[in-house]
Amino acid sequence: MRTIDPLHVQLLRTLRDEGAVSRAELGDRLQMPRPRLLAELERLVNLGYVAEAGLAASRGGRRSTLVELSPHLRFAAVDLGASSIDVEVVNGRLEPVAAYTEPADIRSGPKVTLQRVNELLHKARVDGAYERLDAIGIGVPGPVSFRDGVPVSPPIMPGWDRFPVRELLTREHGCPAVVDNDVNIMAIGERHGGVAHSVDDFLFIKIGTGIGCGIYLNGEVYRGTDGCAGDIGHIQVDPNGPMCSCGNLGCLEAVFSGAALARAATAAARAEVSPALVERLAARGAVTALDVAQGAVEGDVTCIQLIRDGGRRVGSVLAGLVSFTNPSMIVIGGGLAQLGHILLAEIRSVVYRRSLPLATGNLPVVLSELGPRAGVAGAAVLASDLAFGEAA
Amino acid sequence: MRTIDPLHVQLLRTLRDEGAVSRAELGDRLQMPRPRLLAELERLVNLGYVAEAGLAASRGGRRSTLVELSPHLRFAAVDLGASSIDVEVVNGRLEPVAAYTEPADIRSGPKVTLQRVNELLHKARVDGAYERLDAIGIGVPGPVSFRDGVPVSPPIMPGWDRFPVRELLTREHGCPAVVDNDVNIMAIGERHGGVAHSVDDFLFIKIGTGIGCGIYLNGEVYRGTDGCAGDIGHIQVDPNGPMCSCGNLGCLEAVFSGAALARAATAAARAEVSPALVERLAARGAVTALDVAQGAVEGDVTCIQLIRDGGRRVGSVLAGLVSFTNPSMIVIGGGLAQLGHILLAEIRSVVYRRSLPLATGNLPVVLSELGPRAGVAGAAVLASDLAFGEAA
Repeated sequence: MRTIDPLHVQLLRTLRDEGAVSRAELGDRLQMPRPRLLAELERLVNLGYVAEAGLAASRGGRRSTLVELSPHLRFAAVDLGASSIDVEVVNGRLEPVAAYTEPADIRSGPKVTLQRVNELLHKARVDGAYERLDAIGIGVPGPVSFRDGVPVSPPIMPGWDRFPVRELLTREHGCPAVVDNDVNIMAIGERHGGVAHSVDDFLFIKIGTGIGCGIYLNGEVYRGTDGCAGDIGHIQVDPNGPMCSCGNLGCLEAVFSGAALARAATAAARAEVSPALVERLAARGAVTALDVAQGAVEGDVTCIQLIRDGGRRVGSVLAGLVSFTNPSMIVIGGGLAQLGHILLAEIRSVVYRRSLPLATGNLPVVLSELGPRAGVAGAAVLASDLAFGEAA
Repeated sequence: MRTIDPLHVQLLRTLRDEGAVSRAELGDRLQMPRPRLLAELERLVNLGYVAEAGLAASRGGRRSTLVELSPHLRFAAVDLGASSIDVEVVNGRLEPVAAYTEPADIRSGPKVTLQRVNELLHKARVDGAYERLDAIGIGVPGPVSFRDGVPVSPPIMPGWDRFPVRELLTREHGCPAVVDNDVNIMAIGERHGGVAHSVDDFLFIKIGTGIGCGIYLNGEVYRGTDGCAGDIGHIQVDPNGPMCSCGNLGCLEAVFSGAALARAATAAARAEVSPALVERLAARGAVTALDVAQGAVEGDVTCIQLIRDGGRRVGSVLAGLVSFTNPSMIVIGGGLAQLGHILLAEIRSVVYRRSLPLATGNLPVVLSELGPRAGVAGAAVLASDLAFGEAA
């Protein structure tokens, strides 16, 4: 195996995250002797990773020249959800140059789904977003063997078990690819460019169709022995609760998630206890979690109560995880984060009451900043890190 | 800050864990060029860390010479429990050359407790166990700032908050010292010389007076932002359960721990539902967790049921932590591990039923191998690592 020099990766990451930097400043920042830095930059220019960017402002004496990532670098970022495909093509600084979002059913299997991903990427090329891709990052809604680049026993992804996702994308686009769990890429996105910027130990809780947790420890994503760390949706919160899709009773996900909330809202509308939900059921024949959010904004008591109940359930699980991991921050994201501050207030209340004071003394519990873009943002970070590692 | 060369630490660890090794084999093992290895060994011989140990068996050609850790190296390992002091002095290979165990009350405060630790260590010197100590490792029953070497807001240790434990020991014995949480040192001990040998991701569950968890991730102890990671004793397992010392209802520790089990056993004896416990209460005026263990061995149904109930509670918390961290192994230790296989069977049953199949497919749930020695064993590992880092 080739050894990757972390300093070289650091150099490319600095240019990614800060844009054009003078050679002098880069040398200071990386504490790299000037001859070595110049040799390394020359190598990266020849490889097509780095480009000249003019003269820096004077620091006295001879003016240093600026370098930046090549304007031709392109990464693809893909976020596969249970019912959606998000694709972005980004430049070296991870700014989107093309973006596509469309509904899709992950249960249609890997061939159909990845075929559509490939079509979207080829469309982006035809539209002029890139000539060639330097790396692809993709997130899928289930456990992943990060090393092998394949999903592993994903419960809601029939046909995907050990499907060679990485290999297929690499072959199709002629560049390296990296596969991760969808909640992990959201956590990575939020740490790179969101509310958890530079926070080394935090939990990213995704509340959407299902519930999952991305775990950052010591500045790295923790994925567990089999790639299924963070699967908190099946922690039992009520031994007498409803049956979950996994076959157990009262899992968090069975009690509170997009699907569970839609069920509870439908029942409330049918029982005519919520004017807001009754109206929406009559108008459209179905109610969703979003209807509950809107009802709550209008002050509908039942909607507010449904959100509070859910927040309490999530909070009770989080309280235990806070005692266990003693993180620096908790970020709430995913579709149900739209339930907003009522949800957040209830989660906070339970976590602060139930966890150790030492662990919650300075513990912010906050909403995701990147929202629905968190996943592709993180996939882009993974893709660039992969490419930088290959160049280093 | 001085940079520690990990290869040098690795060299000393190899001699610690494997004894006398030939120069040739060391070079192979560490993939260190021979001139550099010889220079490094000479430096470590001069520093008093390494000694010659004769000639190795022939590998053809000139016979390589053996080196080993200096026979004069001595580390002190201290495990402070809620109600006990364990002290060992060990040699470079971490073999005990002196050991003391005595009852003590951590609530008598840091001055009294550490005074006693110092007396025991001085006694060991007078007894000939060492001339000078090279490092001290100590574990305390509460959260610790590992960086600062002080306890932080420890709930059951009045007077210890931010007490300069490391500084006091360093000053008294003229050597570096390292302070950690008692469950962490047990986990470290079990990984170095016990059932979790070389396992990179595991949870060590201590069930004793209280309940805590040592967390190994990626081969390192994870301590959390404030040093209180693994504090699982206060995870709520029953919203209608008894009040805990922390003020919340139904914490795991309030429902099942040494103290909780003694209370439940006393109640069972008074209610005369358990012949084994009635007999012991009459004989000694009190019953303990150990009486429950012995009653269970004798087949007393109430004792067995008490252990099963406790195992179920611990198992329900562990099931969630398994889904969350996806570890490779769970080790059960601490005083109540004496409850043995009934406890283990119940914990296993709940964990295997409640966690994701992917996470439990290859998950051993096993008893600690080192038992009451786990703590001092881990403190000795920490002390030696500290000394090796200073030498490297």
